[in-house]
Amino acid sequence: MSVVDGELAAALAEISDLGSAAALMHWDERTKMPRRGASARAELLSTLARITHERRVSDELGRLLDAARSNLDGHGPDSDEARVIAVATREWEKARRVPADLTAEIARAESIAEHAWLSAREAGEFDAFLPHLEHVVDLKRRYVDCFEVDHPYDALLDDFEPGASTSDVAAILGGLRDGVAPLIERVAAAEQPDESCLHGDFPIDRQRRMADEIAGSMPFEPGTWRLDDTEHPFAESISSDDVRLTTRYDPTYLGTAIWAVIHEAGHGVYEAGMPKGLARTPAAAPRSLGLHESQSRLWENWVGRGRPFLESLVPRLREHFPETFDAVGPDELYRAANAVRRSLIRVEADELTYNIHVAIRFELELELFEGRIEVADLREAWNARYRDYLGLDVPDDRAGILQDVHWAGGAFGYFPTYSLGNVIAAQLWDRAAADLPDLDAQLAAGDLRPLHAWFAENLYRHAGKYGAAETVERITGGPIDPAPLVAHLHRKYGELYPVVI
Amino acid sequence: MSVVDGELAAALAEISDLGSAAALMHWDERTKMPRRGASARAELLSTLARITHERRVSDELGRLLDAARSNLDGHGPDSDEARVIAVATREWEKARRVPADLTAEIARAESIAEHAWLSAREAGEFDAFLPHLEHVVDLKRRYVDCFEVDHPYDALLDDFEPGASTSDVAAILGGLRDGVAPLIERVAAAEQPDESCLHGDFPIDRQRRMADEIAGSMPFEPGTWRLDDTEHPFAESISSDDVRLTTRYDPTYLGTAIWAVIHEAGHGVYEAGMPKGLARTPAAAPRSLGLHESQSRLWENWVGRGRPFLESLVPRLREHFPETFDAVGPDELYRAANAVRRSLIRVEADELTYNIHVAIRFELELELFEGRIEVADLREAWNARYRDYLGLDVPDDRAGILQDVHWAGGAFGYFPTYSLGNVIAAQLWDRAAADLPDLDAQLAAGDLRPLHAWFAENLYRHAGKYGAAETVERITGGPIDPAPLVAHLHRKYGELYPVVI
Repeated sequence: MSVVDGELAAALAEISDLGSAAALMHWDERTKMPRRGASARAELLSTLARITHERRVSDELGRLLDAARSNLDGHGPDSDEARVIAVATREWEKARRVPADLTAEIARAESIAEHAWLSAREAGEFDAFLPHLEHVVDLKRRYVDCFEVDHPYDALLDDFEPGASTSDVAAILGGLRDGVAPLIERVAAAEQPDESCLHGDFPIDRQRRMADEIAGSMPFEPGTWRLDDTEHPFAESISSDDVRLTTRYDPTYLGTAIWAVIHEAGHGVYEAGMPKGLARTPAAAPRSLGLHESQSRLWENWVGRGRPFLESLVPRLREHFPETFDAVGPDELYRAANAVRRSLIRVEADELTYNIHVAIRFELELELFEGRIEVADLREAWNARYRDYLGLDVPDDRAGILQDVHWAGGAFGYFPTYSLGNVIAAQLWDRAAADLPDLDAQLAAGDLRPLHAWFAENLYRHAGKYGAAETVERITGGPIDPAPLVAHLHRKYGELYPVVI
Repeated sequence: MSVVDGELAAALAEISDLGSAAALMHWDERTKMPRRGASARAELLSTLARITHERRVSDELGRLLDAARSNLDGHGPDSDEARVIAVATREWEKARRVPADLTAEIARAESIAEHAWLSAREAGEFDAFLPHLEHVVDLKRRYVDCFEVDHPYDALLDDFEPGASTSDVAAILGGLRDGVAPLIERVAAAEQPDESCLHGDFPIDRQRRMADEIAGSMPFEPGTWRLDDTEHPFAESISSDDVRLTTRYDPTYLGTAIWAVIHEAGHGVYEAGMPKGLARTPAAAPRSLGLHESQSRLWENWVGRGRPFLESLVPRLREHFPETFDAVGPDELYRAANAVRRSLIRVEADELTYNIHVAIRFELELELFEGRIEVADLREAWNARYRDYLGLDVPDDRAGILQDVHWAGGAFGYFPTYSLGNVIAAQLWDRAAADLPDLDAQLAAGDLRPLHAWFAENLYRHAGKYGAAETVERITGGPIDPAPLVAHLHRKYGELYPVVI
């Protein structure tokens, strides 16, 4: 049962259902759809988006929300009822601020820019993509103008990290960058570990069986999830009882399947853990991508690449690939799983350098929307930062500014949530580890339930009731803070890469 | 591009897209959805149905259709434009006749009755299902009252066979029943063929590879279809470039996979052949289930169980199951594929007795809506007819009146379309065979393209512009007529089951 009833519940459920329908269609498009189905699918998704938008900005919904707000007596400000109404009101007000024409124009421009980006990336030519990106940025500036904000970037950030302020995020990401930069320098100078156990010949069908087993060992209830092949791994939930994980397989590198699956399962168990009472309301699931990424990262890096869990993973790998892993122990796997290498491509980056990739993008986005840089100068600025922060020369745009789809899709304000996720993961992990004295032993035995129960109790129950900062405050008693992540990285990589004297 | 433009095109495309979204969700529900996703999926489908209904009966759509109708100068009555507007007007008028409350009550009652049917069938107790069926029939009688029709059954039939009249269908099905009854008697007395090559041990994964190959040999364009496992085989098209086939596998019987796949592919190639110019209009695909079934049946029975095609199938079967088929030739396979056995279960019936199962249901439905029989007396009437027509005693309700879900789902008027499909298939086959003198040789070589091209030219191009009778008239020059089917069955089974003297 929903926490809000009558017409308002029906109106909100309808919007939520339309979102679930679109989610299923996105999943299908990337996993099952026959290739030629693409153009009809685009029409279909655009129809659903239009109908959803109509519902979201309707006068009727505004009236229902007004009535509900004035009828909240007996429900405290943290009650499910009050939070659902607050979140719904916020979304309604936000959607109403943007003229329908601009919304439509942005959608059209993004769709065209994404196609242009694909061709430009293939050809490795930023110049061909430039006019499209300029148009998208121009429209996004007009989008920003629809809102009264302290900083223009606030309006963009809010779409992915509701309630976050640019200055707070800049402080967090800056602290993180300054904290890890010297560590990266040191690690680069240290001896590189032997990663050979993860590289070789790993037939896809055997990898697929292994991946199914790994996903099945994650704390899901039976009959609530599935795992499929795709190009770019993602997780999608249709409902909290219907979670779709995806992964891809590299026949010469086993790491993709292992940690992409655990990463996506991290997103998945979070969605699967959402309280049923909030289902089909706008607070049914976290709106904060930072919170979401904290879960995928925590399961991937703190659990999945942690020494204890790898102990439970070794026998499983031996079962599927005895020829490789019969001679490999948990220590060797641990070193291979955590090899650091300064590289140009974000999605292939290790736990340590990943945040530098994010910092570069975030800083460029800020300059763009503060008007300190033009779109035409982005490439040069990009390449300069890769030289400054990672000591790498960008050989071409494909390995540089054209690597991510985000900007083509208008997703300015998205990148910082990746690092926020890492930061929050470290904070939550420290708290969980303090509460669960036997955590290491449990993970070494492959028992993920106690950690999962901790998250259900401390995180999942908040669902989408609060933004990231307030959720973290409620769990840790303090603000979002990069210090625990910096400490974690120094501890872990200091040990893995001891200083060569 | 659509044949109708502007606001009307957009309104019709929206209704069509919502239908496609629901189709994808149905497909997913029956092939991919994690088990526990069912209850959220029911909500989601009901939301989509409600939104679609709102759109279909809207005053705005009525106004747009009025305006379009009075602006048709230059477009003849058979033009795509005129037919799209005529079909859309008909659907709008029909949807408007039924009060929203009754529509909702029917949907609710059917959903409840389907669950009750499942339990009743499991327990084998019609009595437990009886009150639910009575409620559904009562509502359907109220539904009938919303229309001005010559015969109450006309209103029901029209939902599945637009424009068909009860008296015409009764004449066709009666003629068919009378034509095949003596043949069934004779075949029952004849020597039974050796069916052993289709029974044995057929590992599912090898069957799946075979089925993929068979589906891939059907006249689809690459990248427009897929085949998945399910419980009850069906085909669904999301667009004409995105066709989903499904099948099930019986590890001890190979026939299910072979002919269910060809049957569903028959539906599929029909949908894939729909003209692009009509896409996203109500005439985009046939509304007549009889026409649709004519295609699945034609590919399954006339092609797939025909002697020529089986010649091309034998080498394929030998490749996948050499231990069974190395010693089996096309003649033996032909006899096994066409074995006749009077049985109690419709979905397992052979080509010959199938129509008797349909006739029984149709006759009972007629009596029910003519008020000549009560729901409480249905079981007795059912069992009596199985005795009369097939000489079989029904041992329990599971093998009797509880075997089909249709009535629980309120689908009165649906059954006759199965036999109409067989009748039409025979008519179209005769016409195609007359036009394609080398058809047998082409099928024996596994070349299905000439037959497919004939259907594209003669059938597919009409899409959903006309009902079954008018479509058949346009292709054959005459009415829907059971004589060709009766002649086909006599010819085929007379030869397969020669009279024992």
